[in-house]
Amino acid sequence: MAERNHAGILTEKNVDEIVTLKGWVHRRRDLGELIFIDLRDQSGIVQIVFNPDYSKEALQVAETLRSEFVIQVTGKVIKRDEATINPNLPTGTIEVTVSHIEILNKSKNLPFLIHEAADVSDDLRLKYRYIDLRRTDLQDTFKKRHQITQSVRNFLNSNDFLEMETPILTKSTPEGARDYLVPSRVHPGEFYALPQSPQLFKQLLMMSGFEKYYQIARCFRDEDLRADRQPEFTQIDIETAFLSSEEIIELVEKMMQQVMKDVLDMEVTTPFPRISYHEAMERYGSDKPDTRFGMELIHVTDIVENCSFKVFSGPAKSGGKVALLNIKGNADQFTRKEIDGELTDYVKTYGAKGLAWIKIADGDLTGPIAKFFSEEEKAQLIERANAEDGDLLLFGADKAKVVYDSLGALRLKLAKDLHLIDETLFNFLWVVDWPLLEYDEEANRYVAAHHPFTSPVEDDIDQLTTDPANVRANAYDIVLNGYELGGGSVRINKRELQNKMFEVLGFTEESAREQFGFLLDALEYGAPPHGGVALGLDRIVMLLANKSNIRDTILFPKTASASDLLTDAPSEVSDTQLEELSIAKIVEEEE
Amino acid sequence: MAERNHAGILTEKNVDEIVTLKGWVHRRRDLGELIFIDLRDQSGIVQIVFNPDYSKEALQVAETLRSEFVIQVTGKVIKRDEATINPNLPTGTIEVTVSHIEILNKSKNLPFLIHEAADVSDDLRLKYRYIDLRRTDLQDTFKKRHQITQSVRNFLNSNDFLEMETPILTKSTPEGARDYLVPSRVHPGEFYALPQSPQLFKQLLMMSGFEKYYQIARCFRDEDLRADRQPEFTQIDIETAFLSSEEIIELVEKMMQQVMKDVLDMEVTTPFPRISYHEAMERYGSDKPDTRFGMELIHVTDIVENCSFKVFSGPAKSGGKVALLNIKGNADQFTRKEIDGELTDYVKTYGAKGLAWIKIADGDLTGPIAKFFSEEEKAQLIERANAEDGDLLLFGADKAKVVYDSLGALRLKLAKDLHLIDETLFNFLWVVDWPLLEYDEEANRYVAAHHPFTSPVEDDIDQLTTDPANVRANAYDIVLNGYELGGGSVRINKRELQNKMFEVLGFTEESAREQFGFLLDALEYGAPPHGGVALGLDRIVMLLANKSNIRDTILFPKTASASDLLTDAPSEVSDTQLEELSIAKIVEEEE
Repeated sequence: MAERNHAGILTEKNVDEIVTLKGWVHRRRDLGELIFIDLRDQSGIVQIVFNPDYSKEALQVAETLRSEFVIQVTGKVIKRDEATINPNLPTGTIEVTVSHIEILNKSKNLPFLIHEAADVSDDLRLKYRYIDLRRTDLQDTFKKRHQITQSVRNFLNSNDFLEMETPILTKSTPEGARDYLVPSRVHPGEFYALPQSPQLFKQLLMMSGFEKYYQIARCFRDEDLRADRQPEFTQIDIETAFLSSEEIIELVEKMMQQVMKDVLDMEVTTPFPRISYHEAMERYGSDKPDTRFGMELIHVTDIVENCSFKVFSGPAKSGGKVALLNIKGNADQFTRKEIDGELTDYVKTYGAKGLAWIKIADGDLTGPIAKFFSEEEKAQLIERANAEDGDLLLFGADKAKVVYDSLGALRLKLAKDLHLIDETLFNFLWVVDWPLLEYDEEANRYVAAHHPFTSPVEDDIDQLTTDPANVRANAYDIVLNGYELGGGSVRINKRELQNKMFEVLGFTEESAREQFGFLLDALEYGAPPHGGVALGLDRIVMLLANKSNIRDTILFPKTASASDLLTDAPSEVSDTQLEELSIAKIVEEEE
Repeated sequence: MAERNHAGILTEKNVDEIVTLKGWVHRRRDLGELIFIDLRDQSGIVQIVFNPDYSKEALQVAETLRSEFVIQVTGKVIKRDEATINPNLPTGTIEVTVSHIEILNKSKNLPFLIHEAADVSDDLRLKYRYIDLRRTDLQDTFKKRHQITQSVRNFLNSNDFLEMETPILTKSTPEGARDYLVPSRVHPGEFYALPQSPQLFKQLLMMSGFEKYYQIARCFRDEDLRADRQPEFTQIDIETAFLSSEEIIELVEKMMQQVMKDVLDMEVTTPFPRISYHEAMERYGSDKPDTRFGMELIHVTDIVENCSFKVFSGPAKSGGKVALLNIKGNADQFTRKEIDGELTDYVKTYGAKGLAWIKIADGDLTGPIAKFFSEEEKAQLIERANAEDGDLLLFGADKAKVVYDSLGALRLKLAKDLHLIDETLFNFLWVVDWPLLEYDEEANRYVAAHHPFTSPVEDDIDQLTTDPANVRANAYDIVLNGYELGGGSVRINKRELQNKMFEVLGFTEESAREQFGFLLDALEYGAPPHGGVALGLDRIVMLLANKSNIRDTILFPKTASASDLLTDAPSEVSDTQLEELSIAKIVEEEE
């Protein structure tokens, strides 16, 4: 459209062409009478040269150029001398000799240098996000995000899905995380809520006769933030009528296969492995196992049940678990001080009371607790753990949950510290056979493990009131490299079953009606069998772009206190605005 | 994936095939021993037949079927007898003889019949939106919405645009419409605002080195609603760096050309006609003219300046305007009572004091005001209006704005009433040369006609402080069939000009800094020339799907009082929720 060339894609094929470039002054180097500028635009970087032989006027202007000035130049592409070729730059064999330059905008000195942003505080980078975003690294991440999104759309479009938009101003439902609220001006004292997900609307769409819905949907949760959480996040939201969980799982596999192909040019084989929730906890101490390495939990409860080490026999006898990780061949890597210090502190954050350990030397157990085991117990432990000289065994002994959590986390930490993970792998995994319900000690009732609309497995429906803890959900989570990418389920589509579910969750008929009356009604007017899935787009981008923080995948992220340091949101608003909304601030002093 | 056939696409090619269908009971007819069901799924409708010869069991189940039951059937496709062919149904030459049926879900009697929904109150239809959405008409609209969205994406993707997501939780800025606010829990007394558009973020993206941005963006305005407004709406949001307004206009033309081709299989020629804002007002009395018919405003201020009819000569002499519409050949269609009654009332809603009229008969003016004109004036009026026997001339005489508004609206009304509009036409039009500023009588200051970041036309910059009323904006609106589809502009990219603009708008340095400090800063760090456009997706869908109301283009729309009758949003929330947000409701009684 424009008669404009792009810096990053010029090659020797363009030699002798007259080109017009628009972009930023990335770097300037003066060499005698000559000025060399690395000119950067979205496509990349090319070296442009100001030389009095080409244009004295252009050189004069070039002398005023500083970093991040925006310029337009016209010049000729020439081949560089052999000696000045830059092998690190795709355009490194050519340069552009400038005959004309125009300064489109100037720039003050930057608060930080773009190519040295890594050394700058996060807060400063967020305040000047528009400068930070100029980094090649972030530019690439958001190009990748675009590719992932379009790949998903293309796949779903070609599978007859319709992209549909559900409301952002919706109804608050206490089940789930904390809602963001929006006061209504027209209805004083009433509030909208921002959706935590389009869950109910996508189910209503199936009841509306649409059979294949998707949306790249913005979702909101007003929770305290961690490294991989943001107040607003994006999910690939899918719902289908008439499909079984097998068919939905197959669909997601094919979709992720396409994304991996389109974005990373990587072939992923399907079907993805599946593991039950129970097996995942037993083997990996995690409901989202990283299967790129082994070092699985080894259960020894039966072996140590009668040993003289009370720390083990106690839990083993009282329904708890004793398990170990065998850190193969790494006994020398850890001093007693490190194990009793750093590693013990680490597992304590997951509720463990301590970290018992044994090293293997001369075919025998060594270390402070070795003496507690009989020869037979020792032999059994060595055999079960497949232990050899130089191995370090780290133990968890407690209630099952504590053993899972602490050894599961320790397994990940040690794999990272010891570089046991092949970072080139992308290990997809389905976790299935989830419990439908979890007992909430605090609330003293069962809560939905996923959400209250998840269907139980057909065979388990009868146990819903008699043995709720053991009812399995018709649900599936997809895991990639130890991160939960998302999950889904077949939903309840019959009124009676949904009633029973609300009953088990401790809803009264009135409270269920008040919050979900419209859904209960809709179930009575020909609701088809339906189910779906939601995948975290931000997390997919994080993993495919090889980032460690969800924040790097969001253009304008918020800080841990949910602030936007760039625009200074949230901020105070006028009294008039609050009056119109019939609300008042409760100021601390007035309490 | 599933071994399932789709009802609406079965044809004679499928004869003798065994098919499995899943869908809804659309209609049931009993004929002696036989039961005929129209089975509906998303793809359409097919007739299925229950006959004791095929399966007695299936027939027994069929006897229990009622409207909107969800069923799964297996049967054989057969050709219908010549006599029973239904030419109104794409599948009308075949039917399916059912050998097996399963009821997947039942349905109570519906609150209204799907194929008779037109007779039902809007409120009832919105409360049971999931039933209303099953109508073919609405199903088609949302398929079309999907097609339009994908067509736009495909076009922009192939033009190197990146789809990018900007925040929904953002900062409140008083300029513009009223914001929806979101109280912050972490920062008591502070609020986020939902974006009225991603305007500032998309400009910041250009300053971040991204050169081609787009987003199908949700936007929010807390304003009183009209037929073509919703609290949340969707815009196709585009921004580019380094492109001129000509290039942006060309881009949008090509995009709409592609959409018309993809969605309606219609060829639209480019470039679209352009008209200046001033000419649009003069010729059509509207800044978004419907050019599918003529009946333009005819200006006669000069002719009537000295006539003896004070209603005309008054405004004509004091800087106002006198103009007329010639309703060609339709004098007989309107009685004096109708003109003085209905039509006069109509123009009064646009500020006119009355509606003077003249009919042409025997080559002369007739009617009560004819006597006020000299022979010369009569002859001039007839010539200017190109008036012939049987024409009706309807006059506006007032300040320019009132004449434009009342005759512009009357022109549209009469064209509709008299069926002068060719409904098959899609007339695109650019309105350009907009004024940059408008004088706000109430606020007693200039306000931005578009928004405060719109660049003035280069040549007019010097007049910004000396003659602000006559400064033209580097802005363009795109109009389709009398509806504003959207608009855009080249933005200000220099700090000094933006400062001057804020000054003209009556901002102090502090107030500009407080609200837009981050933008002013960003302009100083190498902001490239940039500009863009935003198009209303809902409105495009409305026009391309031939709907008259924006509500029909939104899956879950809100009422005129911004309520969602389906989920009952907004609604009351718990005191705990409000306490956590440090806000309180101000109840009427307490005031």
